[in-house]
Amino acid sequence: MAKGALKLAIIGGGSSYTPELVEGVLKRLDRLPVKEIHFVDVEAGKEKLDIIAHLAQRMIDKVGADIKLTASMDRKAAIAGADFVMTQFRVGGLQARANDERIPLKYDVIGQETTGPGGFAKALRTIPVILGICKDIEALAPNAWMLNFTNPAGLVTEAVQKYSKVKTIGLCNVPVSMTMMIAEMMACQSDELTLEYAGLNHLLWAHRAWLNGEDITAQVLEKVGDGANFSMKNIFEEPWEPEFLQALGAIPCPYHRYFYQTEAMLAEEKASAEQGGTRAEQVMVTEQELFELYQNPELDEKPEQLEQRGGAYYSDASLNLVDAIYNNRNTINVVNTRNNGTMHFLPDDAVIECSAVVGSAGARPIGVGKLGPAVTGLIHQVKAYEQLTVEAAVHGDYDSALMALVNNPLVPDITKAKAILDDILRTNYDYLPQFR
Amino acid sequence: MAKGALKLAIIGGGSSYTPELVEGVLKRLDRLPVKEIHFVDVEAGKEKLDIIAHLAQRMIDKVGADIKLTASMDRKAAIAGADFVMTQFRVGGLQARANDERIPLKYDVIGQETTGPGGFAKALRTIPVILGICKDIEALAPNAWMLNFTNPAGLVTEAVQKYSKVKTIGLCNVPVSMTMMIAEMMACQSDELTLEYAGLNHLLWAHRAWLNGEDITAQVLEKVGDGANFSMKNIFEEPWEPEFLQALGAIPCPYHRYFYQTEAMLAEEKASAEQGGTRAEQVMVTEQELFELYQNPELDEKPEQLEQRGGAYYSDASLNLVDAIYNNRNTINVVNTRNNGTMHFLPDDAVIECSAVVGSAGARPIGVGKLGPAVTGLIHQVKAYEQLTVEAAVHGDYDSALMALVNNPLVPDITKAKAILDDILRTNYDYLPQFR
Amino acid sequence: MAKGALKLAIIGGGSSYTPELVEGVLKRLDRLPVKEIHFVDVEAGKEKLDIIAHLAQRMIDKVGADIKLTASMDRKAAIAGADFVMTQFRVGGLQARANDERIPLKYDVIGQETTGPGGFAKALRTIPVILGICKDIEALAPNAWMLNFTNPAGLVTEAVQKYSKVKTIGLCNVPVSMTMMIAEMMACQSDELTLEYAGLNHLLWAHRAWLNGEDITAQVLEKVGDGANFSMKNIFEEPWEPEFLQALGAIPCPYHRYFYQTEAMLAEEKASAEQGGTRAEQVMVTEQELFELYQNPELDEKPEQLEQRGGAYYSDASLNLVDAIYNNRNTINVVNTRNNGTMHFLPDDAVIECSAVVGSAGARPIGVGKLGPAVTGLIHQVKAYEQLTVEAAVHGDYDSALMALVNNPLVPDITKAKAILDDILRTNYDYLPQFR
Amino acid sequence: MAKGALKLAIIGGGSSYTPELVEGVLKRLDRLPVKEIHFVDVEAGKEKLDIIAHLAQRMIDKVGADIKLTASMDRKAAIAGADFVMTQFRVGGLQARANDERIPLKYDVIGQETTGPGGFAKALRTIPVILGICKDIEALAPNAWMLNFTNPAGLVTEAVQKYSKVKTIGLCNVPVSMTMMIAEMMACQSDELTLEYAGLNHLLWAHRAWLNGEDITAQVLEKVGDGANFSMKNIFEEPWEPEFLQALGAIPCPYHRYFYQTEAMLAEEKASAEQGGTRAEQVMVTEQELFELYQNPELDEKPEQLEQRGGAYYSDASLNLVDAIYNNRNTINVVNTRNNGTMHFLPDDAVIECSAVVGSAGARPIGVGKLGPAVTGLIHQVKAYEQLTVEAAVHGDYDSALMALVNNPLVPDITKAKAILDDILRTNYDYLPQFR
Repeated sequence: MAKGALKLAIIGGGSSYTPELVEGVLKRLDRLPVKEIHFVDVEAGKEKLDIIAHLAQRMIDKVGADIKLTASMDRKAAIAGADFVMTQFRVGGLQARANDERIPLKYDVIGQETTGPGGFAKALRTIPVILGICKDIEALAPNAWMLNFTNPAGLVTEAVQKYSKVKTIGLCNVPVSMTMMIAEMMACQSDELTLEYAGLNHLLWAHRAWLNGEDITAQVLEKVGDGANFSMKNIFEEPWEPEFLQALGAIPCPYHRYFYQTEAMLAEEKASAEQGGTRAEQVMVTEQELFELYQNPELDEKPEQLEQRGGAYYSDASLNLVDAIYNNRNTINVVNTRNNGTMHFLPDDAVIECSAVVGSAGARPIGVGKLGPAVTGLIHQVKAYEQLTVEAAVHGDYDSALMALVNNPLVPDITKAKAILDDILRTNYDYLPQFR
Repeated sequence: MAKGALKLAIIGGGSSYTPELVEGVLKRLDRLPVKEIHFVDVEAGKEKLDIIAHLAQRMIDKVGADIKLTASMDRKAAIAGADFVMTQFRVGGLQARANDERIPLKYDVIGQETTGPGGFAKALRTIPVILGICKDIEALAPNAWMLNFTNPAGLVTEAVQKYSKVKTIGLCNVPVSMTMMIAEMMACQSDELTLEYAGLNHLLWAHRAWLNGEDITAQVLEKVGDGANFSMKNIFEEPWEPEFLQALGAIPCPYHRYFYQTEAMLAEEKASAEQGGTRAEQVMVTEQELFELYQNPELDEKPEQLEQRGGAYYSDASLNLVDAIYNNRNTINVVNTRNNGTMHFLPDDAVIECSAVVGSAGARPIGVGKLGPAVTGLIHQVKAYEQLTVEAAVHGDYDSALMALVNNPLVPDITKAKAILDDILRTNYDYLPQFR
Repeated sequence: MAKGALKLAIIGGGSSYTPELVEGVLKRLDRLPVKEIHFVDVEAGKEKLDIIAHLAQRMIDKVGADIKLTASMDRKAAIAGADFVMTQFRVGGLQARANDERIPLKYDVIGQETTGPGGFAKALRTIPVILGICKDIEALAPNAWMLNFTNPAGLVTEAVQKYSKVKTIGLCNVPVSMTMMIAEMMACQSDELTLEYAGLNHLLWAHRAWLNGEDITAQVLEKVGDGANFSMKNIFEEPWEPEFLQALGAIPCPYHRYFYQTEAMLAEEKASAEQGGTRAEQVMVTEQELFELYQNPELDEKPEQLEQRGGAYYSDASLNLVDAIYNNRNTINVVNTRNNGTMHFLPDDAVIECSAVVGSAGARPIGVGKLGPAVTGLIHQVKAYEQLTVEAAVHGDYDSALMALVNNPLVPDITKAKAILDDILRTNYDYLPQFR
Repeated sequence: MAKGALKLAIIGGGSSYTPELVEGVLKRLDRLPVKEIHFVDVEAGKEKLDIIAHLAQRMIDKVGADIKLTASMDRKAAIAGADFVMTQFRVGGLQARANDERIPLKYDVIGQETTGPGGFAKALRTIPVILGICKDIEALAPNAWMLNFTNPAGLVTEAVQKYSKVKTIGLCNVPVSMTMMIAEMMACQSDELTLEYAGLNHLLWAHRAWLNGEDITAQVLEKVGDGANFSMKNIFEEPWEPEFLQALGAIPCPYHRYFYQTEAMLAEEKASAEQGGTRAEQVMVTEQELFELYQNPELDEKPEQLEQRGGAYYSDASLNLVDAIYNNRNTINVVNTRNNGTMHFLPDDAVIECSAVVGSAGARPIGVGKLGPAVTGLIHQVKAYEQLTVEAAVHGDYDSALMALVNNPLVPDITKAKAILDDILRTNYDYLPQFR
């Protein structure tokens, strides 16, 4: 990567999150000599893209940064010569997400955009698009790093690792949020903590936690059981049963509620869907408000309201990765990367989420030793679902798709799996050319 | 093992299945020089034991075999000097089984005596007893082989492998039944088939099937999907969906219905429980009828009605093992034995069910290569449940017990897991000293 | 495979061993309906091929078997429609073998045709030829089994497994010879023994031995240490040190002498080379004598003198495999086949030598559990040499070739490795087109 | 570990290296609040210990540090309440080392104090002593970290991991020296490099090297082949063959010369032994000179001559570890630690040397993915030797000892292994109570 001048390509630049990313870049100009940012989006998102681009330009102008900003529909131009390609797009937009949430509910199954059948549907739509982006990167920016935030981030990253040559790291704001919340609970700085993270995206545990060399896992679990804040904005905060946390012996991520507290989460989702609307439907409203704000020509910084949107630490997580790679910092980040034996019971080419050392050579996972049966079975079950989903998404293979849903722990049996799958394929027909 | 004179100890000799076992011994006297059989049972089973002993004596007398038959409550005497110890007892009898079936149903969860929470409860009751038997074997017959049929056979065998030095093989009549049914479908002899079996007890697949070198897996799956007989007497024969079987690509065992057709099986169980009674309650009736038959002093052979009881091939499966070990036949049997790397993603000391070569050195599993994600996730999830159950049963550890049920795929979430666990511990209080 | 009519293609039909193979076929006509045998050889071996063909025809005629015998240079015709292709050719003939034995001796390194640099040179010559044969099989007899006896059998089989689709099993007469010698020592029938074989070709141990269920490993080792016959005709019988055998705790194969008794074996080889000639040079004499015998028009059976040649049980080992596959016997044979996790520390696609169940679906290895450090290091070191040799042989890659020899435990260091490699490449120039 | 006051116990405090360690402590007082240092040594080393203690006191006084220094024979007092126990002792002193170097040479085998039979003898002497120290730590300072520099560091650390509960990390100055030399070659800062280290102690490769994201492995190998400085003071710098380095494709450590350039290194050792004496005999002279210097009451800093002794970066490597643990820095250090699946083909409880993240929770290895056959065989062979050596050293088991040497790649065969073993046991009789 050339020293002294960085180009970032932002795929899905019209996202409401983008101002946070711009803010993150501007805060790090001493470390990251960003000279060019290219936002790209699809035709349907043109209006949002323009709003974002104008706001971003105002933010850049405010600090007087020497950054050339471009916004266009031209993906190839965006990617050509980029050092980092950051992907945060959403195929089908929020309406597709609303479908992902509502279809499973029809069958009394959790409807969520990243886990369960909803995440499955999103993966089917997203993977062919991301592999198209990878082809462009291979041709036009073969040394670029692709940092992927598009959900389901683990699945998407696994598809990229298996079916392209692009250097990639998948990223999520869950682990950094967990770390910050644990630091808050323990009233310490986050860098005083050592957290042994390993699992899959949105199925991540901190298996052990240390504060200054002392094992505090049990203490953290007790605090979480006592109701300490340990959730994300976009997940219903069903309280954790203290006895269960003690039996588990590892710190679950907020998304684990879908797997461990299934019936309560389902009940809440169904109530929400009937009342305020699914999460996607709520976000549509928030988004509209945000874009109204963004249009204000006086606004030249990220508005506070964005934080309500749910992507806490999103910008920090992503730009810290850029910093770690560009400056070979070899810092520890929790990322989605190739397993390579870290969890010996999963294939080497599976993508896992774990603590990794990130530097100019990419992400190298930190060993976790043998994990116990309290977690290995669930990890393997979900990874099996993910492996099958990647095959289904890439090859448009119905058998793999059916077996994927059959293996998803949130889907009770094959009858429901088949019904939901057929509904997903029907509803998403326009976005699933590989199945035609 | 001394050549020329074998002693068999039958723990749970008062079982209604015992006449089939006696018949099996008498059919094999040319190969197996059985000189002594000792039935042992607990006080509560004394009456049944006597009936069985008299019938068995009449069967022996009929063929004029030179076998000394003893029936007693003296387990140590039975075990002392035995060459084979065969375990087929049921702690708590059929009433405990009925509880195992009914408790989960209260929570809308599959109630079955070998899988799900029912099998879990049975394991908690059985494992301490079997480890007591192992202590006797270690002291009084250290070279004996223990052949275990007591369900859940895989879990019980794993406990024995981990917590005793007794040489053991766990056995089930499911695989031999599957083989016979496939042979019937294909209109061939069973020894013309090669079936690549691997999984866990009651979670067993034939991953590939060959007939004279030709891969017939797809053909068998098609026949099963078309309604060919592929079930066991004691399981409701919910039909298999052909599309699912094709997607699975491996031949499931009848018990897979609990995992793959959960809602239909649950509905059937609930209906049965309300109408004819649970399976245990039905068996109580059959048993009574059988024991009435057995008491007939004219009866000197296994009555045909026993076959309705559901244990087809039970005698053949067990005595073929005795034959293979005693005569070093190195035949292929499907047994429960130490994993030892056969399924690389499971611990070496996990007990699996797979095709194995059985001879005088015991059972040695046959390699299966890499299994795919259509099955690995489920196998690992269920094995995690089993590992935790063994720890719970041996140590009376509540945390392990809770995590075991949380990991059981038939239990939807932690709320139900906890409710069911507490109910099981309460209901089985007398049989679970380790939890007091 | 068609029932009722088998065709065998024998590649290298002009070998002096062929009469034994023919005898083996004629002994098994009740089980193996062989209707056609096609011997094929290269131009340079035409004279020998004719002699063998005439002798074979006389043998067939003697028993009046209904077998069509063909001998030709036409490899494609031989392979077309064959059920079994048996490979026993020698690229470069005995002269090349003599070079393999003499080159290393120049550098004070073991010169042997299957292990060490000699086996390496033979692999470089053989692998391209066998892959050519495989192409013919893929095109002309895609369902045929290739049974490979060509040394180094493990290496050659690994190349076939990795670089062709042909169904193959590699075979050696060492394990069957070990079994027969152990049976002789223990004065028992070979089928009373259970021998846990695992290792690589010519680096094979019986890790444990049982006789009727009793572990006799220590007894066998004591007898071997006391001088019981435990060698092959073609290896110098350097006596084993009893203390070493006890420390090893596993029964080594005769070829282990090269690795464990290196200096004594080297000294003997050097003395032989100066006096009677290397093994190849001695065999040239034996061969000439054999072929003189074979030409005798009165001779219509395998002459006794063939047994001096060193290939004891060669015919039985190979035709028992044909029988096991054709008749789905599922017998235990020790073969070279895909590792598939049997030795977890080796790659899945490595070819190992181990006890396997052989039937119509091919060879399935029997698990051996964890092997200890007394053997794992050596196995892995030699397998690393083999992996590199396969790459070198297939791609003509000098770097892999050099690293192969560097990793061979019989080559002391890189200086010698390079000198020997360059000598081998020079001397075998005509046979190594891939390196040009 | 208490914040604000650290106690260091230095076992083998009378070592000539100790002044460097003291200097390292004094340089880091801003980060490491060392308040107490306790040197301990054995009776025979009392004189040297006194000299070192006086010098250390002068060094402390010079900078006016508030550190209480104690020197005694009282190991328990030294250990009690220590935060870090640093072990750098030498059982039998330099005379024993001279024996380790000379005994193998008698048999034409490499004589070196850390690899080959010399390192083996040192392990036999050292392991019982270190396990005694561990008992003291378990009793008197259970939270202390033991940082072990005593050679053979990998073997000693493995014994501690397997046979004690002490938290330990093994350390060597080879990797840091390699990094510094590579930085010098590439004219860059060491923190610009990413070096993927993995192997065993003194058998360590940098498998890949990156400079600012660019793979520079081939460049480094070319420079090493061209004669760039890449050796340690205490190893003869036999030049590397460029063709070999290219074929290897990984950067070897200086000690690899013993394995890859065996005959040249042996020749050099034999010449040295006859002329200037073995390395130990040369060091005896250097040591005497150093201790004369140390006695100079004017001297109040580490004298430059110490650097000739061969322990470059020794102090930095060790105190950077103390810093990383005490201050939870999570920096990357190359250490000896539990494998835990990092190299999947080695047991989980093997100790390996690799890049690891070191913080207050100890060392966590960084994944290396699959290593290729160019290195895996040798690593496994040497680790097998090490596993057997640990067993031999702990249990005084002759069989394990013999198999250890048989598996050491520097020992040509069992005849030599046995001769050398018997010589070692005889010569070291006083130091090997476990073998009596």
